[in-house]
Order: sequence, then C-alpha cells, then structure tokens
Amino acid sequence: MSVIVAIDIGGTQLRAAVYPLTGTTPITVQRTPTLGMEDGVFERLTALVDSVWPIELADAISVAAPGPVDPYNGTIISTPNIPAWTNYPLAEMLSKRYKVPAYLGNDANLAALGEWKYGAGQGHHDVLYLTISTGIGGGVISSDMLIEGSRGMATELGHVTVLSDGPVCSCGVRGHLEAVASGPAIARYVLEQISAGRLSTLSSVKNLTAREVAGAARQGDELAKEAFVRAGNFIGLAVAEFLHIFNPSIVIFGGGVTQSGSLILDPITESMKRNIMDPSYLYGLQLATVKLGDDAGLLGALAQAHMRLSKVR
Amino acid sequence: MSVIVAIDIGGTQLRAAVYPLTGTTPITVQRTPTLGMEDGVFERLTALVDSVWPIELADAISVAAPGPVDPYNGTIISTPNIPAWTNYPLAEMLSKRYKVPAYLGNDANLAALGEWKYGAGQGHHDVLYLTISTGIGGGVISSDMLIEGSRGMATELGHVTVLSDGPVCSCGVRGHLEAVASGPAIARYVLEQISAGRLSTLSSVKNLTAREVAGAARQGDELAKEAFVRAGNFIGLAVAEFLHIFNPSIVIFGGGVTQSGSLILDPITESMKRNIMDPSYLYGLQLATVKLGDDAGLLGALAQAHMRLSKVR
Repeated sequence: MSVIVAIDIGGTQLRAAVYPLTGTTPITVQRTPTLGMEDGVFERLTALVDSVWPIELADAISVAAPGPVDPYNGTIISTPNIPAWTNYPLAEMLSKRYKVPAYLGNDANLAALGEWKYGAGQGHHDVLYLTISTGIGGGVISSDMLIEGSRGMATELGHVTVLSDGPVCSCGVRGHLEAVASGPAIARYVLEQISAGRLSTLSSVKNLTAREVAGAARQGDELAKEAFVRAGNFIGLAVAEFLHIFNPSIVIFGGGVTQSGSLILDPITESMKRNIMDPSYLYGLQLATVKLGDDAGLLGALAQAHMRLSKVR
Repeated sequence: MSVIVAIDIGGTQLRAAVYPLTGTTPITVQRTPTLGMEDGVFERLTALVDSVWPIELADAISVAAPGPVDPYNGTIISTPNIPAWTNYPLAEMLSKRYKVPAYLGNDANLAALGEWKYGAGQGHHDVLYLTISTGIGGGVISSDMLIEGSRGMATELGHVTVLSDGPVCSCGVRGHLEAVASGPAIARYVLEQISAGRLSTLSSVKNLTAREVAGAARQGDELAKEAFVRAGNFIGLAVAEFLHIFNPSIVIFGGGVTQSGSLILDPITESMKRNIMDPSYLYGLQLATVKLGDDAGLLGALAQAHMRLSKVR
C-alpha cells in the first residue's frame, strides 16, 4: 500500500498526517508548535515528519502554507509567521530529504481544493471559496481545475476595489475588500464610530476584535450590528463581481468572521443580490459554509497531492 | 480530408468559413448582411453555410455570437442585434440540419481563445484578454483552459466596480468599469465637461464618439486627452485586480478604444502599476494588442471547435 504525507504549516502549529491513497481518514496525525520567530523551524518540521513517516512507500509529500508561494517550483515566497522562510525552497528540501516528490501550495487555494474534493463543494465543477478572517483570501475551481495563474499568485480575492478612496489595505492599495471587511476592519470601524461619539456597549473594551463585536451584536448593540451589515455589504458586492468573473455554482464561505453566521451572511446575501448584473447568475447558485474546519489545511494538501500526481504541468 | 465550418455572427454581417483540420488559412470564406431586425436570419445563415458547405466531411460547425450564450447547450440567451434570437437553440438547429456536431460560444470568450491559439497569446498558459469598445468584455485562459463558468457566463470583465457611486452601467449596477471607460463613456464624459463650461475643440460636434475624441486628443485638445487618461486610470485599476485574480503572463487589449494606441494604453499601464498589490505580478508580464483583427470571430470559432472536439464536458 502506498500513502500520501500531508503537512499543514500553521502560524502556531505544524501538523503532519499520513493518508491512504484513497479516503480522507488519516492513518497517523501529529503536531508540534511552529515557533516561527525562533530558529530551527525546518528541523522541527522534519522531526515531525520523521515521527509519522510510514513504513509503506510514500507517493508524495504535500504541503499547505500561508502567504504567497510558488506552487510550480515549490518555493515559499514569504509566509506571515516564519520570517526565515523567505524565498525558501521547501518542496525541494523535503523532496531531497525524503526521496519522494514534494508539492507546495497556498493554504487558501488548497482549502478551496479540499472543500471541493471532500467538503461543501463536492459534485460541483465551478466553486468560489472566500475566507474572511484577519485577512480576506480565497480560491476558485473552474471546470474542475484549480485556478493558480502563471506564477501561482491567482485568486487574491481580498484585493479588489469595493470602496473608491477607502482605507489603505495591508497591501498598500486603497479601498480593497480586505481593508473594509476583514475581522480587524470590522473592529476598527466600531472603534472609529465610538471615537466619533457613537454609543456602544463596546466602548470600554480594550483590543477589540470582530468576535467581540459579534457578541455585542447578538446582545442587540446597534453599532455592532451595523458594523457587520457594513462589512457584509462590501463582501456581497465583491461576491457579485466574482460571480460575473467566475460564474460558479456554489460559493463557500470560511474564516472566523463567517462563524458569526447570519450577522454577516444575511447582509452578504442581500448585497450580492442587489449588485448582480443579471439574475441568471443566481439560478441554482448554492451558498454554503466550510465543512472541513481545522482539517482544511491537511485535506487541502492531500487533494493537492492527488491533483499533482494526476497531471503533468 | 475533414474540415471545420466556422461561423461569426456579427451585428452587420454573418460570416462563414471552411478551415482545414490543421492551420488557420480558410479554404472558403463567404459573408452576407445580418439584417438582424428583419425576419429570416436563420434562413440567411443556412443559405450562407450551404454556399460554403464542403464536399469533404465536416467534423463540426462552430459559431461565435455576441451577447450571453450557453456554450454547454448551444443556446443564444440573447444577442444585441437579433431580437428574434432570444433563448434560441442555434447549435441544435444547425446540428440537426447539417448532421454534424455544432458548438456555440460567446464572441469575447472565443476572441480570447483565438488570440491565445493563433494570435498575440501564443505560447502563454495564462492569458487575460480585455476588449474595450461600445461595451467592455473579455476572456481568460488559465492553465491552458478557457474560463467559462457553470453556465458559460464567466469573465464579464466590464462588470466590476471601479468607482463607488459612479454612473449606472448598462447592466443597471453603479460604478462598473463599462460605465466609465467604454467608448460611449469617454464621449459622454467630454460632453458633460463641455456642458459644465469646459472649453474644447469638440464643442460643436454632434453625436460625439470616442474616435472623434481620440482625433481631438492627437491634435492637442486638453479635455480630449484628459478623457482618455481618466478612462485609462479606471481600466488600469481593473487590470490590476484581474492580475490579482488570474495572475496571467500576458494581457491582450482589443476593441475600438484601444486602437487609440498610447492615448489610452499609456494611462492604463501607469494605473495598473500604481494599483498592483505586489510588483511580482508584473515580473515578465507582457502587454499586447490583438493580432487577429476582423478574423477574431472566425478564428475563435475554429479554436472552439478544436477545444470541444478534444474534451468531453
């Protein structure tokens, strides 16, 4: 029997799992702290991989990592929590050490791939996955193919204009979706409104997060509710445009902010309908939330291994 | 020898050509007026196809048509200049009559496919094609595959927000690219500015078009030049976002407005660079204009026939 070794590079944890060639139930799973600001991340990773390394022949190692990566040459361009891994040829290093093919992909793209293969998107040919948390990202499956682009940098879905002359985004450009609808953007809006004199039960909260805004909204805080409606309006506008661009049959929402449920999903849906150019984009369209949860990284890496093993490019 | 029969449905002309299975030099080409507002368009089309119908076995008929079409079932949903062709099963009707497979595609998507296979995009795997004329549309090749979407309505690239609360688009939504940067939008901006008291050599022109604005700009008219810079700024913003979304290795510009050359292409390029989230999207990126010209429809239809004949879906 041969197997796939899947790796999920997280900001706080490294995880490794061994999967059989068919199925999504791991034979083994192990984890270890990333400690990305300290030396020795690669050594911690290989100790982890050694601990799960199967007796059976492994067909491939497949890695999901946050941040821009080049999936064609297996290099991490940069990753938020591990400063030493900049232009870091991780796939090559793993392949040399373990003598098997190694693949690397962006975690948002691979989450889309995993949700399509094993989660909410099963059976669809055209899937839009949008994740809204500290940042906003996504991944797209079109005609059963992951959209990656010429250098693997496609589907940066948080970086489209939704508010001309809006706030500056993390990327430096004004008015992007991520700058007005991410978790931090929701909290920032509440703080700005409080500074401007609005009343809210959140006035005294230090280091406000979107999670606390959601809690206050559920308790009836008007400003908190408004902050989610505002973010949802922008997200719905962007989703309408992604429908014009990709015409998917399902939209799958992930990320911490969408765990606020109808607080954010209702305004998203209403805004999407208001901003669609033609109702035929909505015929039969399914809206869903992610199914894979914490396993999205590992299962995305697993799906990537199957994708790479089955195609040439 | 077997051949492909390609058809281009134009607003003023119907064109039909017979191509050998390899190569892009037609064996025969014929055309006839569309007269889309009059009865008998299908009969004119079949008379045209009859006139080119080859003695050799035809492998397929392949049609390019403007407006939304369903490429999966071969139905024209609606097409601008032929009101009778609404929810019109053109491919099925042609297939029944000529006893060969018949395919139908949107002309902007097929122009992208044709430019990739036979024109400016040859050798690239990831191509963004943007056409700017009366409307703004486009097509995208990603990893050697045409993006079509679940119902064939993908890559409506003119229908993305570039100016919050901007003018209402032809589709009814505010602030879309098409509403501020198409040929008519360029002319409208000049007229609005003249109405507001701006001086221009175009003040006395009736039924102003973008072509006349381009002429005045070349003669040094400040308002005319500004109108192209303004449109180019919006187009460049949208192109930057399409780079974030598709990460192509080439952008191909088509349509009458881009025939204004550097008047529009220079501001597009500058705005694209200003609005890109990361310079790595620009590394090795080629900017080009279309090569196929008037033959884009026929050659796009030819490319579609090869695509459909080689895949199942």
